[in-house]
Amino acid sequence: MSNLTDNKVIDLGGLRIGDDKHPIFIAGPCSVESEEHILKAAFFLKKLGVHVLRGGCFKPRTSPYDFQGLGLEGIKYLKQAGEKAKLPIITEVMEEKYIDVVSECTDIIQIGSRNMYNYPLLKALGHTKNPIMLKRGLSATVKEWIMAAEYIAMGGNDKIIMCERGIRTFNDYTRNTLDLAAVSIIKRETGRPVIVDPSHGTGRRELVGPMSKAALACGASGLMIEVHEEPAHALSDGNQSLDFPQFEKLIMELRSIVNEPKAM
Amino acid sequence: MSNLTDNKVIDLGGLRIGDDKHPIFIAGPCSVESEEHILKAAFFLKKLGVHVLRGGCFKPRTSPYDFQGLGLEGIKYLKQAGEKAKLPIITEVMEEKYIDVVSECTDIIQIGSRNMYNYPLLKALGHTKNPIMLKRGLSATVKEWIMAAEYIAMGGNDKIIMCERGIRTFNDYTRNTLDLAAVSIIKRETGRPVIVDPSHGTGRRELVGPMSKAALACGASGLMIEVHEEPAHALSDGNQSLDFPQFEKLIMELRSIVNEPKAM
Amino acid sequence: MSNLTDNKVIDLGGLRIGDDKHPIFIAGPCSVESEEHILKAAFFLKKLGVHVLRGGCFKPRTSPYDFQGLGLEGIKYLKQAGEKAKLPIITEVMEEKYIDVVSECTDIIQIGSRNMYNYPLLKALGHTKNPIMLKRGLSATVKEWIMAAEYIAMGGNDKIIMCERGIRTFNDYTRNTLDLAAVSIIKRETGRPVIVDPSHGTGRRELVGPMSKAALACGASGLMIEVHEEPAHALSDGNQSLDFPQFEKLIMELRSIVNEPKAM
Amino acid sequence: MSNLTDNKVIDLGGLRIGDDKHPIFIAGPCSVESEEHILKAAFFLKKLGVHVLRGGCFKPRTSPYDFQGLGLEGIKYLKQAGEKAKLPIITEVMEEKYIDVVSECTDIIQIGSRNMYNYPLLKALGHTKNPIMLKRGLSATVKEWIMAAEYIAMGGNDKIIMCERGIRTFNDYTRNTLDLAAVSIIKRETGRPVIVDPSHGTGRRELVGPMSKAALACGASGLMIEVHEEPAHALSDGNQSLDFPQFEKLIMELRSIVNEPKAM
Repeated sequence: MSNLTDNKVIDLGGLRIGDDKHPIFIAGPCSVESEEHILKAAFFLKKLGVHVLRGGCFKPRTSPYDFQGLGLEGIKYLKQAGEKAKLPIITEVMEEKYIDVVSECTDIIQIGSRNMYNYPLLKALGHTKNPIMLKRGLSATVKEWIMAAEYIAMGGNDKIIMCERGIRTFNDYTRNTLDLAAVSIIKRETGRPVIVDPSHGTGRRELVGPMSKAALACGASGLMIEVHEEPAHALSDGNQSLDFPQFEKLIMELRSIVNEPKAM
Repeated sequence: MSNLTDNKVIDLGGLRIGDDKHPIFIAGPCSVESEEHILKAAFFLKKLGVHVLRGGCFKPRTSPYDFQGLGLEGIKYLKQAGEKAKLPIITEVMEEKYIDVVSECTDIIQIGSRNMYNYPLLKALGHTKNPIMLKRGLSATVKEWIMAAEYIAMGGNDKIIMCERGIRTFNDYTRNTLDLAAVSIIKRETGRPVIVDPSHGTGRRELVGPMSKAALACGASGLMIEVHEEPAHALSDGNQSLDFPQFEKLIMELRSIVNEPKAM
Repeated sequence: MSNLTDNKVIDLGGLRIGDDKHPIFIAGPCSVESEEHILKAAFFLKKLGVHVLRGGCFKPRTSPYDFQGLGLEGIKYLKQAGEKAKLPIITEVMEEKYIDVVSECTDIIQIGSRNMYNYPLLKALGHTKNPIMLKRGLSATVKEWIMAAEYIAMGGNDKIIMCERGIRTFNDYTRNTLDLAAVSIIKRETGRPVIVDPSHGTGRRELVGPMSKAALACGASGLMIEVHEEPAHALSDGNQSLDFPQFEKLIMELRSIVNEPKAM
Repeated sequence: MSNLTDNKVIDLGGLRIGDDKHPIFIAGPCSVESEEHILKAAFFLKKLGVHVLRGGCFKPRTSPYDFQGLGLEGIKYLKQAGEKAKLPIITEVMEEKYIDVVSECTDIIQIGSRNMYNYPLLKALGHTKNPIMLKRGLSATVKEWIMAAEYIAMGGNDKIIMCERGIRTFNDYTRNTLDLAAVSIIKRETGRPVIVDPSHGTGRRELVGPMSKAALACGASGLMIEVHEEPAHALSDGNQSLDFPQFEKLIMELRSIVNEPKAM
């Protein structure tokens, strides 16, 4: 049984996600750190033609003693930044009780790797109207990842975007091993757009560029890249974040090799 | 920073969990399937001197189209069975909204592998009074598993039992690879009892016995074993469940090599 | 200590390997199966502008009861095919005692994944004059792979080409997980050319095309692709081999996106 | 097809390996470091009732710039030590050209993890008369490991002892993950003795004891443990070696729980 049978381009106010001739760019800081910080990033990214602004507000950190995100305050800042810069926004939700507010304030709802197996949360998202970006679990098989999408689709929402973000292997040089074969596999098996996250997929700034190019070359529907004004001072994931000039250089290179959709 | 500093024997109405000279036995079906079914298992297991009765009511299944457990109805049957057979009970909770009812009806609350990274759920459990059995995530490092325990302890509940249930590797002969070195590691690093689950840790009935012996030999605080009257007809995990005679034979063998606590 | 300090373009009779603006194509059957068979493949591939002809003669098969390759007879057929079609050839050596004949008869010597840790063999290759293509071990870390190259270089032969061919993970959809981040990493850490093998890297014919594009996009120095006239009747690795029309279509697509070197 | 059909107890001059009521102990330093050093270890281990003396002479080290073993000189010292202390000896062979001398000088021939896929070497060992101890490859599946044994048995030597020494996983707390389920699996699938190596299987001295107990409890045919007079000064694997008093304490504990064979 499946609720994922047909190919699906997701329309986000005119932005077509999964129209694979035109991959999209999602970018922004790992975490929303302050009102001013996210606004500055938003204007910078908008100017470069990025299509969607990302920023984490609820952060699933390994240690409970690390920065956990700004929560609802962060959502407010992210929403303002998106409105002022005229960018749709995406952020992660980790709890059913925040689905309503995240659904209302943001455009795309992200499910992070740690929650890919959180089936009650997935079921609840089946009743929202937003596109859902479902990240692959840290060690999820292809079947498990697709079945997680079925948990959402079963509730009626089949606007699902899959996100490959690397899997856990013995290889200790990179934070994760980016499994780019999954792009073709998931597109064929589910008909859904596949976004690649080379920032988490490698954990190393210098590998984000090459893996971005590889992802687009093998048919990714878009990229999600972490960008921070000052990575050395980021509250999370600084090692894998590009600074503004690095990102500008990369997006120019990527633009020369693909036809992206017109920015909104 | 840590809230897990001291060694900890958990007292459950007189049953001492983590007093490692006396490992405990937790057993029962993967899922509570009916009122009669769980009651029969309870009396059988009580007679054999099992210390805690297990039975899943909320089941995190890979496919949303598979049996999802009996839910609150299952909790009711499990509670009745425990009361009638005079056995403390353990069941899994997957959602914050059910914590109160599970906390009230059961003795030990289980967090399954798929929810080890569900930090809001772990935080919420920090405010319960029940012992919590925290299963290791499918591909959790030692550090991540300990940090998940910190999420619970931070809220004030440090009655945490750790459960090694196998990790995901390339090895396709077994469902998971049981990492018994984790028993010593976790005991030393956290001072908490470590229960081993050889049923999920191997996924194969014929390996449950040898791995049970190995686990006790290297210091496990107890075992959790899936037992089903008719494994061939189990609604979940039949391949790894022992039938009643197999379990009876195993517990007799185990009893001859360890000193277990007096059953309650 | 290292004998791999400088960047290195390897010149093979005019063909420059590692001049990354011009990636090379290595193709051919998994195994040399007959004189006629390899000759036919050679002419076909030459016509398409492939740069190097591959064909296994000594085959490291999991089962000793499977086809083990034609051995020295295969070497003879491969050499003839290369000479007639004017293509340099590459084949694997598994034993020190065959190094001399393989060194004399072939252009590039391949070390397969299973022999990456065969240090005496690597040391012996350090005394040959041929370029050596060193495949990554099934679960080799980046450090181990580089150190294997050091075993060769220590003997005086630093004409080493590294080959990423996928690593072993829990993912059971593909035969291996192609670790494309290794392309950038190895180039930066060793200065050596990196060839990508999408055939072994995925084990599935339909993924060879997308992974070939991804590999070239992230800077691979070339590709090695298994091609067989009739994959359904191949004596080894049929599932991952392209037939002639599939390979022709792929190389045309690849050629439109990269600047390859002039065929010899 | 298989040449491994029947159960097999291997008789080594009266020492029965694979008679599972009487597990054997193999111990010694990782490397033979000097004539005096190995002799001292031999007398110490003999006095404790150890059955077989180990010591590496050809060492497959990750880096070619690290200590590579004493080679033939080491073999000579090991042989003398075994003769003087009246202990059978085991050492690793890595190259076909040394099979004759190793076969003549030592009792059991070891194939290390890195050479489990070295099929020509395995085939050549099929023509020796010595028992062969075949270590599992770093990421070998059960099937691959058994097939490696078939490579030896095919040549006529079916005196094969299998050795579980841990597999490579994402877990970075231990050097490898000891897969004890393999003990039962391999015994059932091949009928061969299975020795467990908790030293390589964990890489940490403090885990050798618990894993030794676990291995014996689940039916291992014996243990191989690294022991060094001064682990802090060992030329290889010091972190996982026990010193003399630690080993003495461990073997006394193990002896109290199993019936070992009478030392020769």
